[in-house]
Amino acid sequence: MKTIELIGQKAKRAGRILATSKGEEKNKALEAIASALRQNTSAILKANKLDLENGRAAGLTDALLDRLALDEDRVESMAKGVEEIAMADDPVGKVLWGSTRPNGLKIQKVSVPLGVVAVIYEARPNVSSDAAALCLKAGNAVVLRGGKEAINSNKAIVDILRQALKGAGLPIDCLQLVEDTSRESANALMKSDRYIDVLIPRGGAGLIKAVKENSTIPVIETGMGNCHTYIEKSADLDMALEIVLNAKTSRPSVCNACETLLLDRHIAKAALPPLYQALSAASVTLKGDESTKAILPEILQAGEDDWGREYLDLTLSVKIVKGIDEAIDHISQYGTGHSEAIITSNYGASEKFLNQVDAAAVYVNASTRFTDGGEFGFGAEIGISTQKLHARGPLGLADLTSQKYLIYGQGQIR
Amino acid sequence: MKTIELIGQKAKRAGRILATSKGEEKNKALEAIASALRQNTSAILKANKLDLENGRAAGLTDALLDRLALDEDRVESMAKGVEEIAMADDPVGKVLWGSTRPNGLKIQKVSVPLGVVAVIYEARPNVSSDAAALCLKAGNAVVLRGGKEAINSNKAIVDILRQALKGAGLPIDCLQLVEDTSRESANALMKSDRYIDVLIPRGGAGLIKAVKENSTIPVIETGMGNCHTYIEKSADLDMALEIVLNAKTSRPSVCNACETLLLDRHIAKAALPPLYQALSAASVTLKGDESTKAILPEILQAGEDDWGREYLDLTLSVKIVKGIDEAIDHISQYGTGHSEAIITSNYGASEKFLNQVDAAAVYVNASTRFTDGGEFGFGAEIGISTQKLHARGPLGLADLTSQKYLIYGQGQIR
Repeated sequence: MKTIELIGQKAKRAGRILATSKGEEKNKALEAIASALRQNTSAILKANKLDLENGRAAGLTDALLDRLALDEDRVESMAKGVEEIAMADDPVGKVLWGSTRPNGLKIQKVSVPLGVVAVIYEARPNVSSDAAALCLKAGNAVVLRGGKEAINSNKAIVDILRQALKGAGLPIDCLQLVEDTSRESANALMKSDRYIDVLIPRGGAGLIKAVKENSTIPVIETGMGNCHTYIEKSADLDMALEIVLNAKTSRPSVCNACETLLLDRHIAKAALPPLYQALSAASVTLKGDESTKAILPEILQAGEDDWGREYLDLTLSVKIVKGIDEAIDHISQYGTGHSEAIITSNYGASEKFLNQVDAAAVYVNASTRFTDGGEFGFGAEIGISTQKLHARGPLGLADLTSQKYLIYGQGQIR
Repeated sequence: MKTIELIGQKAKRAGRILATSKGEEKNKALEAIASALRQNTSAILKANKLDLENGRAAGLTDALLDRLALDEDRVESMAKGVEEIAMADDPVGKVLWGSTRPNGLKIQKVSVPLGVVAVIYEARPNVSSDAAALCLKAGNAVVLRGGKEAINSNKAIVDILRQALKGAGLPIDCLQLVEDTSRESANALMKSDRYIDVLIPRGGAGLIKAVKENSTIPVIETGMGNCHTYIEKSADLDMALEIVLNAKTSRPSVCNACETLLLDRHIAKAALPPLYQALSAASVTLKGDESTKAILPEILQAGEDDWGREYLDLTLSVKIVKGIDEAIDHISQYGTGHSEAIITSNYGASEKFLNQVDAAAVYVNASTRFTDGGEFGFGAEIGISTQKLHARGPLGLADLTSQKYLIYGQGQIR
């Protein structure tokens, strides 16, 4: 794949210049990008219309078409997102640590850009401007490779962004789109470790798996969320009901939504009927284990494969457990390390759950839906990391940087 | 590879227990490990003798045999190393950040163990105790896979360490050795992302490349160092000579040794003859580009492939450059992002080099040999990371941890 190699080379060259650009230069470019998005809304919507027509002809689901669709409000919110990133604190050039060694060497650890970041994503065209703006703010050249469904929208958006970058005096190749949406081009991109420093996949399980298996570039894994809510026996059942309802139904298609309810057997009989009533009223389908079905015979039977599933819709699996240890074991076996919650009024249970559950975000008495860069106060996020290396949880601007050591000597030898 | 899967399962189970062990339990185990190493020195040396005999019979080089060899002093220093790690500050459970959100949610970001760490290494058996102790201190279960040359030494050492762990009340499977040293077992290990959270290769270019290409586990790349020293035109030439001599000759086989000298053309004629004299006296072979050979006709000619080589011996390539921009370009093209130095008395040149050179450690007026956990004041290190994700530079205990967010709520929904 000659094209991918060429893109990589250009990105690396542009990235070297961008890496030492001043914060005010980057911010000026981001403001130019925001205005350009607003000024070119009609061109973006025209390209998007083409994608939607092709999508309908290809028989895409309504859910996918909705993710693909842009309108004036969505373009405006893309522009606003870029402006917010421009206003954020510059994550580059921070002195993270420093020391003067006994031999007089002065060492400083400073934050620096990662270099070139590639983002592979699926149908949402707004990712193009969000991801680009976050990477650029952190001083990284960015290579975008969106899904074929959104190719016309992505081309239009990236073209507008590149012109704005150029107008603001930054190298145009700080931002490039891989226009070839074949599997071969994705594979070639994943092997471009000579030019690309970090690869971020944003999408479903299939994409994440392909990237993990094929990439020779360090990856930040994002977005897989098989999240649990465990109602411990001492829980306030009204609070538990509100939280489960929120975690399942407020936005079922996202990664921080609840997929499995774990319920202490001591309170199952009291808790299940009102939960069933409230969840059914919100169109949630329950799938229960045998003990759950003994109390609610009318619900579906959960199979072994239900426990590992990220439904991403209005389905909730329900399991009755003996107590907190079984709940933690179940989460350890089936969870994806995203967000896990316990509802309890017991101090010991809350501490045990917080300490022993191994996930990016562990909650006591709150909805898992809060795992989000904005809700955590980080501003825009490029995804939720479910891996343990580099960054875990919502990825903010600081997570798009690396570090280097600067050493000031006076002739020291060892 | 059933065996590897079984090792992974055991490690994951043991790691869950170790992850929530108290600091004093881990320290007690490390102290037990140090005593056990001392008490069993003769058993270790006996096993090591067998490896050395096999190695000689297999025709290993003297350099490799030296890396493989243990004696009483080396075992004592392994024990001392473990004791130092026991005394170090616990990297787990630190509150790294915290915030109370407007809705009352209290969020804390705390350091947690990575989980299960696998280390693939080559002939040095002391890595077995160093790597194990560092990983255990950071609360990680560890899977070691050393080279076949050291298998008897590694078996003896790991067996002693496991018994000590057990005696100290920690799960014995917190530490396991992959005894099968075939390529198949290494490959199976690299694909065990279900059980292993992080893979750290320690060894030469071939090993690092194999891991990058085959691993589905997140990797921390270590140890490749094609380091440069650039003598800028304003340099104090006496200082430059001392630093180059030290960086090349104090320990040529390690990754922070200097491999290429870049020399400003304005001072080449004055600087080269004394450099040549001093380096020759230290048995260094010079390989120069054409301009260097014009001044020192007696040295070898450097070919294009010399610039990318990590000699790891007493060879130094020399290139004359037009100025700092060409020096930085050369480093950008051929460097491995490990350690790079400028020798200068000019403020602007020092700042430009520090800002524009993209490497883990960038030096002004000091030897690249200082890139080392001990020299930086971090204590023992598990390697020098040359990648940009997670950690860059000497890897200390804190780099063997991940993070999680603990969220304390009172019924919040979104």
